[in-house]
Amino acid sequence: MKLNILGCYSATPRTFTNPTSQVLEINNHLFLIDCGEGTQVQLRKHKIKFNRIKHIFISHLHGDHFFGLVGLISTFRLLTREADLHIYAPKGLKEVIILQMKLAKSWTNYNLIFHELTSTESQVIFEDDKVEVSTIPLDHRVYTNGFLFKEKPGDRKLDMNAVLNEDIEIAYYRKLKQGFDVENKNGDLVKNETVTFPPEKPKSYAFCSDTAYNEAIVPLIKNADVIYHESTFLEQHAHLAPKTKHSTAKEAAKIAKLANVGKLILGHYSTRYDDINMFKTEANEFFENVELADDGKVFEL
Amino acid sequence: MKLNILGCYSATPRTFTNPTSQVLEINNHLFLIDCGEGTQVQLRKHKIKFNRIKHIFISHLHGDHFFGLVGLISTFRLLTREADLHIYAPKGLKEVIILQMKLAKSWTNYNLIFHELTSTESQVIFEDDKVEVSTIPLDHRVYTNGFLFKEKPGDRKLDMNAVLNEDIEIAYYRKLKQGFDVENKNGDLVKNETVTFPPEKPKSYAFCSDTAYNEAIVPLIKNADVIYHESTFLEQHAHLAPKTKHSTAKEAAKIAKLANVGKLILGHYSTRYDDINMFKTEANEFFENVELADDGKVFEL
Repeated sequence: MKLNILGCYSATPRTFTNPTSQVLEINNHLFLIDCGEGTQVQLRKHKIKFNRIKHIFISHLHGDHFFGLVGLISTFRLLTREADLHIYAPKGLKEVIILQMKLAKSWTNYNLIFHELTSTESQVIFEDDKVEVSTIPLDHRVYTNGFLFKEKPGDRKLDMNAVLNEDIEIAYYRKLKQGFDVENKNGDLVKNETVTFPPEKPKSYAFCSDTAYNEAIVPLIKNADVIYHESTFLEQHAHLAPKTKHSTAKEAAKIAKLANVGKLILGHYSTRYDDINMFKTEANEFFENVELADDGKVFEL
Repeated sequence: MKLNILGCYSATPRTFTNPTSQVLEINNHLFLIDCGEGTQVQLRKHKIKFNRIKHIFISHLHGDHFFGLVGLISTFRLLTREADLHIYAPKGLKEVIILQMKLAKSWTNYNLIFHELTSTESQVIFEDDKVEVSTIPLDHRVYTNGFLFKEKPGDRKLDMNAVLNEDIEIAYYRKLKQGFDVENKNGDLVKNETVTFPPEKPKSYAFCSDTAYNEAIVPLIKNADVIYHESTFLEQHAHLAPKTKHSTAKEAAKIAKLANVGKLILGHYSTRYDDINMFKTEANEFFENVELADDGKVFEL
């Protein structure tokens, strides 16, 4: 699992900082999460292959989280994309995109499939045999979802020494990986756990931005390996957080602690701060494993 | 008159090239012309004061000419702008902007005034005592206007030696500048042209993008000091120009020659070309005073 931070600053794009966008690489998927203005240029800068992006998740319809999407959709067309593109976003985004395409007498030469979100309960919005994505309802000024990306448990691993000693037909290897007991060539039953190792622990990543401090998300992200939680403000501006429905670094750390996650990545910093290191310092008072997102930073998870 | 090229490449923003946007400084106005994605960052890079922009002219509703506008409008709000903002654009843009503001539960704390354009005849769309802006109907795949920015004739200049010799009351200087004959202190009539110089020739700039080769614009831009004319293609791809309703460098030069303009600036280059110098070479076969626009280039006109 690999997380590319394309942009992690709030509000407005500036010369050296970008609004929210990140790419999560998980089990061969490239999931694009949010798409602020300039995202397509950030994708180019970080040499991320446009045609590997098949699913885009938009948290909410504030401009710093989606103004780059319509341009990306147009660029996909210019690059003669053919693969389907799925967009998971609050209801309303489809209308915005379609209206602009209509005015431009434009079209896509690929299927553009909108999955409009309206539920305030967590729901599974994507699933295949390896990964599941569900929403994390957040508390912001407009309808907002975070997203939980979870690997599904993988196959058990063969203990090849034990398998060969037991003289098991190759045709049964698949069944062993799936956890079944099998017969060996002598017709004896071989217990699965005597010839296999358990699968690797499936990883999970939760994206939580933008949101006020909201303990209701704790059960949804409980024990996640990594969470990205917005921390727009430092303590000195804590009074602005509830009003704007954003969080402080300290609040992000409290959520991380309550949810017992493995790692907390902070981001969505207000552009009023010149030095982002204070976010880590303040979060560390409540939670140890804190890292700072920054534009261009890559986390190998 | 000063022209800042913020972006002059066609189609899609890339790491080192930007879609169309330029700022024309003329008689203390800062007019923003087109606003592709990333324009607000280009404005920052080139240290153009956001609050000096009061009028934005959008040629047409292809994304590479307006996808940056909604973000710029939002940023103006975050910067607590109070001054009115006038937007001159094809009908439809207002709906796009308002829809996105509604979805974001956003607002502007300044007056956002749309002047929706639908006429296919040239019309004056802005006028004050110093400058006039009129549309140049262009021939593109969607409804498109270029814009002609014209200084109004200024005051005559006083020939101070002659004025003092004639012993004219200071109170009459304003009338002299306006071209009137006046009486001197002795009661003699003084002919205006004996004590004043003619005003400087008013300057004009025509922005013509995007458009197919279209001789119909020649009367509108006749004798302009400077024109920016799109040249998406070189001769080797001339067959693509009519189909996509764009121009070649040669066609831009032909228009410049027919209109007898002072200078031709080329831009809106297709991103398929690595070296833009060929645009000048090809245009120079038909017109001498050709310059190449490039992102970040400033023309003092």
